[in-house]
Amino acid sequence: MDSSTFVLFGATGDLAKRKIIPALFRLFYEQKLPTPFSIIGASLTDLSDEDFHEHIKQTIQSFTEFDATIPQMQEFLKLIRYCKVDVTKDQEYQRLLTLIKEREQVLHIPENRLFYLSVAPQFFDVIALKIKESGLGETNGWKRLIIEKPFGHDLASAQQLNEKLTSAFDEEEIYRIDHYLGKPMVQNLEALEFANPVLQSLWNNEHIANVQITASETVGVESRAGYYDKAGAIRDMFQNHMLQLLMMVGMHLPSGLTAKDIREEKRKVIKAVRPIPKEEVSTQVIRGQYGPGEINGQQVPGYTNEQGVDPTSTNDTFVAARLWIDDPVWKGVPFYIRTGKRMKNKSTRIVIEFKNPLKELYETQNVETCPNILEIGINPDPEVSLQLNSKSPLQGGKIVPISVDFSPQHISLPEAYEVLLLDALEGDSTYFAHWKEVELSWKLVQPILEAFEENLVPLHMYPSGSYGPEASYELLEEDGFGWWLDQTKPEKDEFPKFLPHQLTPPTQEQSMSDIELDH
Amino acid sequence: MDSSTFVLFGATGDLAKRKIIPALFRLFYEQKLPTPFSIIGASLTDLSDEDFHEHIKQTIQSFTEFDATIPQMQEFLKLIRYCKVDVTKDQEYQRLLTLIKEREQVLHIPENRLFYLSVAPQFFDVIALKIKESGLGETNGWKRLIIEKPFGHDLASAQQLNEKLTSAFDEEEIYRIDHYLGKPMVQNLEALEFANPVLQSLWNNEHIANVQITASETVGVESRAGYYDKAGAIRDMFQNHMLQLLMMVGMHLPSGLTAKDIREEKRKVIKAVRPIPKEEVSTQVIRGQYGPGEINGQQVPGYTNEQGVDPTSTNDTFVAARLWIDDPVWKGVPFYIRTGKRMKNKSTRIVIEFKNPLKELYETQNVETCPNILEIGINPDPEVSLQLNSKSPLQGGKIVPISVDFSPQHISLPEAYEVLLLDALEGDSTYFAHWKEVELSWKLVQPILEAFEENLVPLHMYPSGSYGPEASYELLEEDGFGWWLDQTKPEKDEFPKFLPHQLTPPTQEQSMSDIELDH
Repeated sequence: MDSSTFVLFGATGDLAKRKIIPALFRLFYEQKLPTPFSIIGASLTDLSDEDFHEHIKQTIQSFTEFDATIPQMQEFLKLIRYCKVDVTKDQEYQRLLTLIKEREQVLHIPENRLFYLSVAPQFFDVIALKIKESGLGETNGWKRLIIEKPFGHDLASAQQLNEKLTSAFDEEEIYRIDHYLGKPMVQNLEALEFANPVLQSLWNNEHIANVQITASETVGVESRAGYYDKAGAIRDMFQNHMLQLLMMVGMHLPSGLTAKDIREEKRKVIKAVRPIPKEEVSTQVIRGQYGPGEINGQQVPGYTNEQGVDPTSTNDTFVAARLWIDDPVWKGVPFYIRTGKRMKNKSTRIVIEFKNPLKELYETQNVETCPNILEIGINPDPEVSLQLNSKSPLQGGKIVPISVDFSPQHISLPEAYEVLLLDALEGDSTYFAHWKEVELSWKLVQPILEAFEENLVPLHMYPSGSYGPEASYELLEEDGFGWWLDQTKPEKDEFPKFLPHQLTPPTQEQSMSDIELDH
Repeated sequence: MDSSTFVLFGATGDLAKRKIIPALFRLFYEQKLPTPFSIIGASLTDLSDEDFHEHIKQTIQSFTEFDATIPQMQEFLKLIRYCKVDVTKDQEYQRLLTLIKEREQVLHIPENRLFYLSVAPQFFDVIALKIKESGLGETNGWKRLIIEKPFGHDLASAQQLNEKLTSAFDEEEIYRIDHYLGKPMVQNLEALEFANPVLQSLWNNEHIANVQITASETVGVESRAGYYDKAGAIRDMFQNHMLQLLMMVGMHLPSGLTAKDIREEKRKVIKAVRPIPKEEVSTQVIRGQYGPGEINGQQVPGYTNEQGVDPTSTNDTFVAARLWIDDPVWKGVPFYIRTGKRMKNKSTRIVIEFKNPLKELYETQNVETCPNILEIGINPDPEVSLQLNSKSPLQGGKIVPISVDFSPQHISLPEAYEVLLLDALEGDSTYFAHWKEVELSWKLVQPILEAFEENLVPLHMYPSGSYGPEASYELLEEDGFGWWLDQTKPEKDEFPKFLPHQLTPPTQEQSMSDIELDH
């Protein structure tokens, strides 16, 4: 890995504190950072290097499992300098450039520079442009830009933003973080699909009946009302994370395994998703908003009673959609996608329901069989399970579903940010969102946004602590299916019932301004 | 289920004591026997009903988990009468017939009679014929005959035996017990293959590289030398149990699920197995005999030092074979079968190794992948596991094999005998060996027997406590494969090595004369 300089804009902000600095320290602790290495924090606050070092120590103490008094802490701080920067002022970039160069000389670091924009989205384009104009981006080595969601508020604003970014950075230099792509089981989707002939040969419309992708949260809007009430689930989750999961599941066997190969296959998927014209959104997309209810035994208010939310808001806190990938491999296979807040449990997972052509053979014997199901758990725990039909010797050979499971025993899996920062430092863009993916996702979502805004789609209320509005069940029932996720895992020797999953203990979700949420 | 009479020949023998009487009592205890029901014990010993009842009580006390003082015991004994029968004497059958009829009248049981021949094999034909001649088999209802292995000593003797049996009973009336077919996971093979589209679509030569069927025991010849030294592993295990497992794995999707359908598919498999001419046996079959060695820390003698074994014996205690099923579904897929005594562990299982066409894709990235493996454990515990390739988040996304497992939590699974007796009483012959299966198995085995006898095949010695002779590894290496079973299950995040399985604690195996072994 090349020695380089890591420039962190928004260095004193919430995201930096909760995610980026801890990830950098962990990488340093595990000796995964290149040597020599330089970190420059930049922010509007006027701080000395010592002040910033103190801030970092407190951050590590508060947001990691490490004690800030360990010797590695002092070594880490040696890499770090601070520079006060008002990102709107040209001359302040010169001071930053001087500091970067000075550190490059002292530490013998080639001019490889990575700029992480951990700032409010309205500054993305400003900073990118000024990096160019100020000469920060004129290097003998490489330059890279990492940005976070939200990448635009709709198709037009995303396109404008991208135009500005690409006037300063090439597409290959831009690393758009979708932290779902940093989750171990999401990265593993590639290996599951492509490294396992038994799964790869089943990964098509001959064998798969439907695909169900769910990301449900138990938290409500929390302190993010200002951002969320304008964004909704459709922008906050659906346009990015959910469609990225769709691409990861739907991609076909690539000719190679480079970032280019994988991203090309993902692009083909999102490109092949059948557009939903505005007037048809109401038949394919369910919009929901949580009302009051009970979660883990606690009464919680409805969305419009949350602090900071407009009491007349029709904002979506739940979206479910039926999508079709119009290519020969997926023709006829519905992809059901849903995400919502204040739902019964916190869970991100993908369910593949296989066709059941053997059902009839067993029905001749009055024997019921269950479809085969592959369940890929992403959150809270990575796991894979396959449901098979099996004879129960305790029930005179009656056929019952069994589940073959894999749950890795992991003491501490690397955080998504740790994985992604390392990838960016290595120049591996496989698990970052390519502009084309982002643009095509916005294109797909744009008519849905408009249909929501123009109230062409009913707003279904659902009680907090439920699985979302009834209408999302009806969406699947139209095709003869049901949401598998809402069933308990079949008990040994028992057919699955449509019963709620066992509740997982409540997790304290961290709110992180409008930039990022720790889903 | 029809009310009927269960006539047990050899009622005071070892098999009756260890297996049949306990199975009958368990069925009675679980109220699975028809009502009314009559049991007649027949044997050469001169016993009163009271003596026989006492014998039964002691049997239940010694060979089951039940206490013989429970009230159900008295109820059970009410069904049971004893009749001294010298099976070679015509007139004694008349006494038996009189008793059967008397009980049928008293208990109001229609003339449905099941005859269980738990006797030395030389009496099979005698008893069957005399059942016919004496009028025992002339009933208004049904009559059935259950017999155990050995069914003949070679092809000719098996054919002779069958001719005699079928002069007294129709094929449909003969229930040949192969108790492997009573084991829960063997019965489950049908459901795994036919009730699971994801497995059924993989069950062919497009996806499967090879199939490995192993039954290994840790015990030696024990008290069975008299029988075993003449039979060898080839007759004791290979001709019956191992080839039955082959048929269960290799059978194709039937048009229905009746006994007739399943047995027809099994017959097609054994019929399609490529014959091994005598002069080619040495290239396809490995013959082995155990020498001294260590099992579970204990020194054990070699086979020829065992009590009752001819010190110059060349008898086989180990057989491995490569078989080919010459049909379009299995063309090109080797089936490797092995069985042996005094091996490293006690284990009966089937390993399906899938082809790995995706290997090359990953090799372009210098990434190693493991073949997908389906492992079906039959003994000691029923279990299913599927090995998949997965990225290890702890090793920077390196691909490692994971195992998705299913092991049922079973407190007490029904014994094979319990399952099979119930099937016979119900007239369900699915899991009994059809004559055609038996005959075709003997046909396949006959040249192997001859090649062994004429010493055309080297006798490989192997140390007790090993996985058998080296030559059995070479058999697979010729095709580029290895015995999967001898590896440890892959550790988390580690590729499997060719290392011994972890030893299971030693189990006391029960020897049961030459009629039956509790494998």
